[in-house]
Amino acid sequence: MKIAFILFDGMTFLDFAGFYDVICRLGQFEAGKGLEWDICGISDEVTDELGLKMKTGRVMPDLSAYDLVFVPGGLGTRKLRLDEIFIDWLRGAAAAPYKVSVCTGSLLLGAAGFLQGCGATTNPSAYSLLEPYCHNVVKARIVQHGNVITGGGVSTSIDLGLYVLSLLAGEEAMRVVKQQIDYPYITQEIVQWQ
Amino acid sequence: MKIAFILFDGMTFLDFAGFYDVICRLGQFEAGKGLEWDICGISDEVTDELGLKMKTGRVMPDLSAYDLVFVPGGLGTRKLRLDEIFIDWLRGAAAAPYKVSVCTGSLLLGAAGFLQGCGATTNPSAYSLLEPYCHNVVKARIVQHGNVITGGGVSTSIDLGLYVLSLLAGEEAMRVVKQQIDYPYITQEIVQWQ
Repeated sequence: MKIAFILFDGMTFLDFAGFYDVICRLGQFEAGKGLEWDICGISDEVTDELGLKMKTGRVMPDLSAYDLVFVPGGLGTRKLRLDEIFIDWLRGAAAAPYKVSVCTGSLLLGAAGFLQGCGATTNPSAYSLLEPYCHNVVKARIVQHGNVITGGGVSTSIDLGLYVLSLLAGEEAMRVVKQQIDYPYITQEIVQWQ
Repeated sequence: MKIAFILFDGMTFLDFAGFYDVICRLGQFEAGKGLEWDICGISDEVTDELGLKMKTGRVMPDLSAYDLVFVPGGLGTRKLRLDEIFIDWLRGAAAAPYKVSVCTGSLLLGAAGFLQGCGATTNPSAYSLLEPYCHNVVKARIVQHGNVITGGGVSTSIDLGLYVLSLLAGEEAMRVVKQQIDYPYITQEIVQWQ
């Protein structure tokens, strides 16, 4: 199992952090044995929408080599969805078994063409921006359409991490991780859309 | 209002990210007008416990110049609480009006002497490690003792951000931010300890 986390200028840091923290705990279970991940971007350093600078470990790797490609959101998505270099690179994830986004990361999955015919979600403030990219905007916290899984706004990142972890490693693994991260909440509004 | 976020090698990224995302939204309200923050550390780059590299904007600034000093947790705290250079620097926060930690960040506040006579909390897996540093380990999600506010494990960072935001800017501001980050949950177990 190999995961690509896509970072970019103007991203919302928590969109990434919740999913990253949870899903990287997959490695402790049998189903996640040999788990690897890369922090990826179109440059070797990115700045989030509040000014924090992070290093990417891989610059524009071939995304078809990953099992799961994760895209966070943030104000930077408004411009980035029109950036041909970024979107062409993201299209390389077409063959990746899982494509996952939080918040307005779904606009980027959409711009890459991955949401055609799909039900998908995003931050409730951005439902109208998502409409042109998918078949149906589903107003739910998590929407799974096959192996394309989109999440709602910012804090959904933790719930989405737990959901994907449960898909890959089962309910009991999810329960263990919830305890490790001291998370008492139960995710509502998970929609399987077909 | 000026906030110092303390980063260090071996930190848990989500401990920081949840609080950071929420509290930086304070700037949109009257109570947070002119909000500034610095990402601080004892080196100009830190690596979290999973390998992600972040830049600190300020290396060992005088922490007495800040109104709120925030310390995340992570496995790195076990070693760092014995690091004299780090702890001496953190002691500079003694005069800062608010000292806030998530997860095992409370071990660092404790090592700096800030929890003497206090009730405090940490990740449930680290209650026994916290005991020597405080008057009483309170098994709750958020514990406020005067202006020393400690939170439970990892995911508590979002709840703690919302709690501190409500202290500084009121309940209505907290409600606005909960909507912005799409957070449907209600924090349980907030203890005022005296």
